[in-house]
Amino acid sequence: MSALATAIYRGRERVPALDPADRGLAYGDGLFETLRVSAGRLPWWDAHLARLANGARRLGLPAPDAAWLAGEASALLAGAPAEAVLKLVLTRGSGGRGYSAPDAAVPTVVLSVHALPAPFDGPLSLRWCETRLAPQPRLAGLKHLNRLEQVLARAEWSDPAVHEGLMLDAAGRVTCATAANLFALVGGRWITPALHEAGVAGIARGWVLANEPGATEAELWPADVESAEALFLCNAVRGILPVGRLGQRTWAPHPALDDLRRRLRRDVPAF
Amino acid sequence: MSALATAIYRGRERVPALDPADRGLAYGDGLFETLRVSAGRLPWWDAHLARLANGARRLGLPAPDAAWLAGEASALLAGAPAEAVLKLVLTRGSGGRGYSAPDAAVPTVVLSVHALPAPFDGPLSLRWCETRLAPQPRLAGLKHLNRLEQVLARAEWSDPAVHEGLMLDAAGRVTCATAANLFALVGGRWITPALHEAGVAGIARGWVLANEPGATEAELWPADVESAEALFLCNAVRGILPVGRLGQRTWAPHPALDDLRRRLRRDVPAF
Repeated sequence: MSALATAIYRGRERVPALDPADRGLAYGDGLFETLRVSAGRLPWWDAHLARLANGARRLGLPAPDAAWLAGEASALLAGAPAEAVLKLVLTRGSGGRGYSAPDAAVPTVVLSVHALPAPFDGPLSLRWCETRLAPQPRLAGLKHLNRLEQVLARAEWSDPAVHEGLMLDAAGRVTCATAANLFALVGGRWITPALHEAGVAGIARGWVLANEPGATEAELWPADVESAEALFLCNAVRGILPVGRLGQRTWAPHPALDDLRRRLRRDVPAF
Repeated sequence: MSALATAIYRGRERVPALDPADRGLAYGDGLFETLRVSAGRLPWWDAHLARLANGARRLGLPAPDAAWLAGEASALLAGAPAEAVLKLVLTRGSGGRGYSAPDAAVPTVVLSVHALPAPFDGPLSLRWCETRLAPQPRLAGLKHLNRLEQVLARAEWSDPAVHEGLMLDAAGRVTCATAANLFALVGGRWITPALHEAGVAGIARGWVLANEPGATEAELWPADVESAEALFLCNAVRGILPVGRLGQRTWAPHPALDDLRRRLRRDVPAF
């Protein structure tokens, strides 16, 4: 998606261009966040910043100052559509000898505003992806910049009638969609895969776990998903999206899902 | 490492800067090569280009025209030191909606010249890394841009007396060093880990497999490495580097290793 506006920083200094020696490009040595802009504001800002800070800690990256970042994001959004997407990339910056990080890394921040993606028309139609997610506990849950598995999985289909693909880990457990988390209603309870070895701990996923009584993390196998009472995907740009089809299996709208979406919309009107 | 000279291309068009929406930064959606420049030339050019083409095929990336690339590399090297390093980054370029690649991807190429790294002083001293390599057959062997595992492994030590770290895969098999391949002399035969699930198929590794009778790929476990008659690391920048120490275990110079280095030097005088 091409950006409506972009701002690049080395530390807190605005710079005209990305250094081609940036470790974000060289090694994917960084993190990103994709935030929904609604009515010109960022409803889940605190949750995104908390995830970014946690990821930075786990990768040993200096996290940018939250107040400074909020000011820069506001300035960039001032000229942007009221409904949009803000992308934030944080990298370890330039330099270092090979994989070894520089002693005093000056992080790079890239803020960019993008048009909202076109809404999906009706319930989602899903497929199973063949590309598996490799188990890597050091990176599991993080929204880091090493995303070739998702690129390969998304390249498995081009049929526009298929909206998303579900990915398994190497052991065959269901983990997530290429760009969303999954919840399955099993025995009247919303279950989402635990992310100890792979996957991204999404912000919308966190909202559901915090706000839906009984929603929990657990192992989910393909048979659990295919026999679920209802399914949805969620992410911070599109909110909660009911699944209507997975391969040959179909689902009718489910009242528990309608109720959950209503509560999300009450909390964040954009969704 | 900061570059002595850099050239950035969108397709074959030279551009002044990297697009901050480049998929190389966003997802690590690309490949790289690190080439030794010696006497102003690129002794392993054909092998690097073959690996790049193979990686591009596996990722579904358009590979740049080899003759065009050779011309651009020569032009950049014309103003550079005769002994140096040329880095080549190839990405899927800008755009696409999320992970989905654009229909007609215009790849990005970044060529940069760097000073030779300081030579290691004497035989290498190694350690074991705790960060494991996740098994991912779709990416195994490729020199792709998703290198957070190597960054995390290299961050495990800062003692300058330790030159490199050996990495295991999730099953505990020895795979490689953070930025080099490993060979172990076992029963009079040079063995290097097979790379079906992780690791980079290095160009120097390929030279050894092609030029050393009996050298072969096989599973190597830590105990095999620690009891080996001799060990070396190799990569395309530094050639073959004897290992003198791994943790508490030490090795004296081995005639088979001296002989192999002589033959490499005859073929590629830089090494």
